[in-house]
Parts: sequence; structure tokens; C-alpha cells
Amino acid sequence: MKIALLSGGSGKRLWPLSNDARSKQFLRMLMNERGEMESMVQRVWRQLQEAGLAGDACIATGKAQVDVLSSQLHGGIPIVVEPERRDTFPAIALLSTYLYSVAGTPLQEVVAVLPVDPYVEREFFGKVKELERLMDVSQADLALIGVKPAYPSEKYGYIVPKAKIASKGASGRGYEAVARFHEKPSEGEAERLIGQGALWNCGVFAFRLNYMIELLVRAGYPIQYDEMVKQYDRLPQISFDCEVVEKADNVIVTSYGGYWKDLGTWNTLTEEMSVRQIGKAICDRTENTHVINESDLLVAVIGVSNVVVAASPDGILVADKAASPKLKELLKNESQRPMFEERRWGTYKVLNRKTLDNGREAVTRLKRVRAGQSLSYHLHVSHQEYWTILSGSGEFVLNNKFSSVKEGQVLQIPAGSAHSVKAVTDLEWVEVQLGRRLAGEDTLRLFADWDDIVKHCRVN
Amino acid sequence: MKIALLSGGSGKRLWPLSNDARSKQFLRMLMNERGEMESMVQRVWRQLQEAGLAGDACIATGKAQVDVLSSQLHGGIPIVVEPERRDTFPAIALLSTYLYSVAGTPLQEVVAVLPVDPYVEREFFGKVKELERLMDVSQADLALIGVKPAYPSEKYGYIVPKAKIASKGASGRGYEAVARFHEKPSEGEAERLIGQGALWNCGVFAFRLNYMIELLVRAGYPIQYDEMVKQYDRLPQISFDCEVVEKADNVIVTSYGGYWKDLGTWNTLTEEMSVRQIGKAICDRTENTHVINESDLLVAVIGVSNVVVAASPDGILVADKAASPKLKELLKNESQRPMFEERRWGTYKVLNRKTLDNGREAVTRLKRVRAGQSLSYHLHVSHQEYWTILSGSGEFVLNNKFSSVKEGQVLQIPAGSAHSVKAVTDLEWVEVQLGRRLAGEDTLRLFADWDDIVKHCRVN
Repeated sequence: MKIALLSGGSGKRLWPLSNDARSKQFLRMLMNERGEMESMVQRVWRQLQEAGLAGDACIATGKAQVDVLSSQLHGGIPIVVEPERRDTFPAIALLSTYLYSVAGTPLQEVVAVLPVDPYVEREFFGKVKELERLMDVSQADLALIGVKPAYPSEKYGYIVPKAKIASKGASGRGYEAVARFHEKPSEGEAERLIGQGALWNCGVFAFRLNYMIELLVRAGYPIQYDEMVKQYDRLPQISFDCEVVEKADNVIVTSYGGYWKDLGTWNTLTEEMSVRQIGKAICDRTENTHVINESDLLVAVIGVSNVVVAASPDGILVADKAASPKLKELLKNESQRPMFEERRWGTYKVLNRKTLDNGREAVTRLKRVRAGQSLSYHLHVSHQEYWTILSGSGEFVLNNKFSSVKEGQVLQIPAGSAHSVKAVTDLEWVEVQLGRRLAGEDTLRLFADWDDIVKHCRVN
Repeated sequence: MKIALLSGGSGKRLWPLSNDARSKQFLRMLMNERGEMESMVQRVWRQLQEAGLAGDACIATGKAQVDVLSSQLHGGIPIVVEPERRDTFPAIALLSTYLYSVAGTPLQEVVAVLPVDPYVEREFFGKVKELERLMDVSQADLALIGVKPAYPSEKYGYIVPKAKIASKGASGRGYEAVARFHEKPSEGEAERLIGQGALWNCGVFAFRLNYMIELLVRAGYPIQYDEMVKQYDRLPQISFDCEVVEKADNVIVTSYGGYWKDLGTWNTLTEEMSVRQIGKAICDRTENTHVINESDLLVAVIGVSNVVVAASPDGILVADKAASPKLKELLKNESQRPMFEERRWGTYKVLNRKTLDNGREAVTRLKRVRAGQSLSYHLHVSHQEYWTILSGSGEFVLNNKFSSVKEGQVLQIPAGSAHSVKAVTDLEWVEVQLGRRLAGEDTLRLFADWDDIVKHCRVN
């Protein structure tokens, strides 16, 4: 069996900690049994390893998440990069062509698709393994895991089985045929659905690889990975539920009665946070209040209960937990470039962004490259940079000339000059960018790998 | 009549907006009739001007507040600098010697001492003026203004008159003799005191200059200003109330029935703030919530009412208004160097403070010097500085050599090198300090005035 993970979403739901470069699944806010903080992605990955499923896993994600995924999972998983963010049907189609034409997965192999951010117990992965056997015995096209509803929620999709699922556990054969689906019912409808044995759809789908490949062939889409990448924009922007699951004839569901939670909003996430305070914070006369402080500033909370206070270089949130699901709506008109990013080579944080006269702009950043890592060889068309090295040492290259750099040095990089640096020891500097158009489009990348940079510069 | 203002206090009560360099009275959070934001000091100064009293005013304060006072009052008032912060008795003694030996004030002149931060109506200054006449008719040693209590507060001092003050206004002659004082009574005691006609002590004291001068002579303290400055540490650390008012025989009080408020805590201050949001903020589903955001970060508040959210480069506060008076106590063990300061020459803001290896430290600041202003000629013993000029132009001097600087230049200032800059146009730069001991004690100031710097460097 293959495990195909989907790492989607940008996410204003957990603003200001999540941003377009750092989706909620990468926030290290959960504590594992050894007392270490881990992100949702790291938790699921650890659970897959414990279940013996990690070796057969791959993951689909957007360009913006490749660096942080590599960094958080230590490069332990093949990453399939979506050429653009569309929806779950295109992403699963892309993954299927990868498995078929690149990884050489046999067509009869069962593929289980999992979102990367469910908060579940170990038992859940037992269910995932079981899907393979259920596909055999049921001869179904698709097998789903349905979560036993804890309450008549209005925000989930419901899977309605043909026979009522016994309340004490799965039926004897371990699965039921699916009659239909019901998306986001009212509370009253949800109660009726639960009476009929309906289960929450938690986004887990299993199919044999040939099922998807045949579906792609029939629909006239490529089944070779390279070709799929090229034609990715032809795929409809639609969910796998709508495009495949709801149209399929022969779908089964197996019920999972253990703990499952969608940590998508501050109120659900904080319920799972055993640590009440992360970062610099003091609380007084508070009850059930969480402070997650990723800024350098002290946060003081007095006499305010049932609230989440979150601070990061992107902003400050003070939200009543029950009202926190309104956050996404409230921020819908706010667009802001991320002030903190975790990259393949290290991290950066925006310290200040200032509009100057004549349309010029100044951005001051604290940048850190881990020992052994290097930036791409790149140039900026319209702005110059000034680096003041705070600590560490490295090899710097400017217009094909190499030099050593270390703490206390200042580097000036004129507009139009190609440059890179490789950290020998952890290298940290304050960078001032000065000029026009300081966003990404002012940057031209020449080479990504340090070895290529060295080769290129030796020749030129 | 002379007006002697006292600008005291550091203030954690309005943290994170107030800090040791910026007391609460300097925060621009009040709106005047023209819709402009002003600080408590600016408000009182404007009211003194409107009452025709500003020309006769002087102010006592500590070193740390001289720059911000000059900046906010545009240098319009003589500043008497306390050699160290002690209490109100030493401060008023120092002011008295200044008036006597420097300003040449006649000994018979009435001096009215006012705190710099009462929130009052125009009528209050009419009362202040009246003190001069009351000193004449009563022949009292001291004349006070007492505020008609609005409720039996436990946090103020009460002035108990000999005769009960008529509830509808002052007595016919406009004053009453004072029987005694009662500091911070219980609520029950406060009710009884109010029944006896007691008034709140708002810290306004009037006396003839010779009363204080004679008192100093009798106590063996100097009456010449220069000598008083030298011997300032001999003066007891005690309030004027305890040392003078409560020991005096002949004290009168006149009652003020208008609006008076102590804006010392977030709950009282926000009651007077007609503007609910200052700075970048969005609020949703909130009632009676104030956001004062001096940071560059967006603040979002959802579903949290009766709360004050304040953010500055020094920290983030989320406080229930009723609980906000507990702030000072909560922060008593927190000591932090101010992250933002308003100085004579301009402003600076700390963008980042980082501890490095081997006990080194890096501090990144955004510094702005107003056109025409200059820094002192100074050197740093143990750390070097790197300035990246963002905008503006100026004259820079390093080890007695002058050069022009403008946007886009980088200046390196080694440890031990004397330097200064004068802004020709508003000059702004990002400054990285790198080294050991980055606090004030690493700085040696040589000359304060630019003219002196020019003279010195031409000779050397």
C-alpha cells in the first residue's frame, strides 16, 4: 500500500502564526510524549513511522511549502510539487501519475490519500492499514474512513451508509456500502444523519492505482507525470470528493471511533495544546487563556479568560476562543507579505519595512543560514543590499569572485550583481534592502546549488 | 504668581506604552478640540497657555525626560533637572532655589505647584489663579485645591476641612481651614470623610516663596540653586505632603467641583479616550474595547469586550480594564531597557536585540535625526557600529574628520572612535551595534553641541 499525503492550504485561520508561506500544519505547537514541540506535519509523519507506513509515503504540495517540508521532515519523503495550487482532485491526479510513471508502483497497488493535518490517535493508522484488506474483500472502487460524530456539527461533510452502522463498533465485516454524502448540514439535519449512522468525512480515500489512471485516461488527461505537470492547468479546480467520490458507484466506508479532530481554528487547536504559554508571556487572573508568542516582545495578559493571544512578526491576535472561527472572514481583505519564513537554507525575519521618498522602500531583515547551507546565486534588478555580519563565517561570492566573510564585516551588493553565500558555520546577518520593488519579482535566480555556482564562477 | 510643574514618575502603570524613558504623561493619546492627538503634558501646557499662566511656569524633572519635554513643549518652558529622582519634597525644594537664586523671583511671590498629568477642565486653572488671592486674604502658609469626591475612592488622599464645606459650592469666602489629612481610607472611612466635607488631594500646593526658602534655611539645606544641585542627595526621600503640608499649622483648601481625573491606569485613561483605536487595528464583535497600537504589526481583536490592548516596541498588553490597575504589581520583576525613545534630536526604535556567542550582543535600531539636529560627539568603548543610511543627508564626523553622508552609504564606526552626525535633511538609518556591554555605560560623551564639535575638530 502507498500513502499519499496532501499538504494544502495557506491559512488565515491561524493568523498571525500561519501565513502564505507557513500553513497551519507547520506550526510547532503540539507537545509529543517526550515533551518536544512538534508541528501537525511532524506529528502525522511520526505516527506514520510508528505504524510502519512512512517508507511507502509521498506528499503533494505547492512550491511555497517545499522548503519548510524538507526542513521539518528532514528530507525523508518524496515531494511531488504541484505546478500551481488548484484543488484536491488535481493534486491526487498528479500524485497518481507520479506513482504510476515515476515511482513504478504496480497498477493493482492500493493508494491511501491522507490530509496532513488530522489530529488522531495511533488507532487511526491501524484503520488506514486495514483499508488495503477492505479493498480486497469488498471489491469497491473507493474505501473511506468515516469518523463517528461526537456531536451534530454543521461544519463537516457526512458519509451516509446504506445500512445503519452499529453504534458499538464497525459491523461484522468491518465496512458498509456508502449510500450518499451530505455536506455541512444544519444542526437538525446533522442529528437526523447521525441517527441514520452517518459518519464525518475526514478526507481519507483509498483506491487502486489503476482506478485513477483509468479515470484520467477516460477523461483525456495525461498519465505520464512530466506531461501532467505541463498540462496541470487543464485540470478542473475541484475537490476529489466532488469529482470522484460522489460520482463513484461502489464506495465503502469503515468507521473510526477514536479521537479525531480538525485543528483548523484557534479554538480547536488550543484544546489540544497542553502548554498554555509558548514564548515570553505572563498571565494573571486568567482562565483557559492561551498565549502563543513568536515575537521577541513580552506579552502580559491580565484578567481576560477563554481567549487566545497570538503574536508573531506578522501581527497580533486577541480572540475569544468561541469567536475565533470568524478570523478568516475578518482578515479576508488583509493581504500582507509574510514577515517570517522558514526556508531550505534557514530562516529570515522582517525587522522593519519602511516607505521612503520617491517611491523607494527599505526592508531590514535578520537572516540566518545554517552551517553547510547556501543561498541560490541570484541578483536583484532594482535594489541594492547591505549585509552586516553578526556571527558565523562563510564563503561569499559576488559577480563570480569568491571571498571569505565573518562577523563584523559589511558587504555591499549593488543592484544587478549576482551573489550568494555558503555558511561554513551558522551565519547570521542584518540585511538592509534599499530600492524599488522589493518583492520577489525583483529577484533573478541563476543557480540553486552551490556546486553549480562554484563551477560557473570558475569558468567565468 | 509662578507655576511650578512636577513631571515625575517612570511608570509601568501604562506599560507597554510607558517606560523609564517615556512616562505616561508623554503618550499622545488624548484628542484636543481641533482633533489633534496630544499628551497629558501637552494638554496641561495648552491649558496653562489658554489661562495665561504659561509665561510664568517652570518644570522640574529627571534627566531622562529632558529631551522628550523639550520636544513636546517645543522648548517653551525652563526645565529644572533633578540630579537624581527622589520625591516631591526635594523636587519642590530644588524648584524653589531655582526661582529664588536663578530666576530672581521675589520672596513674596506666590508659587503654585501642579502635577503635570491631571485631566481637568479649564475651570481648574481659574481655581489655580484664585490661589494667589486666597493666600492674600487668608494669610495661610499653604493653600491647596481639593477636588469634590465623585465617589468614596480608596486610592486617594483626603483633605478634611475644619468646617463642613457646603455641598453646592465653596463657602462664601472661597476657602476653609484644613483640619487634617487622611491617606487612602477604606470605603467606609471614605464615606464618613465625605460626610464631613472632605476633598480629594490633587497635589496642588501654593505657598509664598519665602515660606519654602525659610524652611530650607531652618533645616540647614542650601538655598542657592547650584549648591542645592550638589547637595541634592542630602535631601530626604519624602513627599511634600508628608514633609511640609501635614506639618504646617495654617493650611487652607479651596474646593473644585469640576471634572478631575487621575489618568494613571489604563481603565481611567481609556475612559477619556474618545478614539477607540490608535494605530493599525481591526476589531470585530467588541464592546468598550480600546486598542492602542504603536507597533508596525496589525492587531486583530475578535469578540473580546471591556479590554485594553496596547502594543509597542516594548511589549503587548491584553488587560481587562477593571483588572488593569494590577499591571504595575505584575510587572514589578520585569526590567527591560526601553525599545523606543524620543530624544532631543529625534527618535530611535530597537528592531532586534540578540545575544551572540562569547558574550557578544547585537542590537539593530532604526534611528531618525530631525533636520538641523545633531547627536553628541561620543565614542563607544567596547562595541562597533554599522550605519546603513536609508534616507536624507547630513554631515558626519569620525575621529575629527568631516564627510558628507547620504542615502545608500554605509558607515563603519570602530570601537573607541569619536563620532557624531548633523542632519541636513531628516536623516534615517539602520544601525547595527556589535560587541560587548551595549547599554549606556559603554558610551563616553565628549561634546553635546554641534558648534563645539566643529570648533574642537578644526583645532585637532
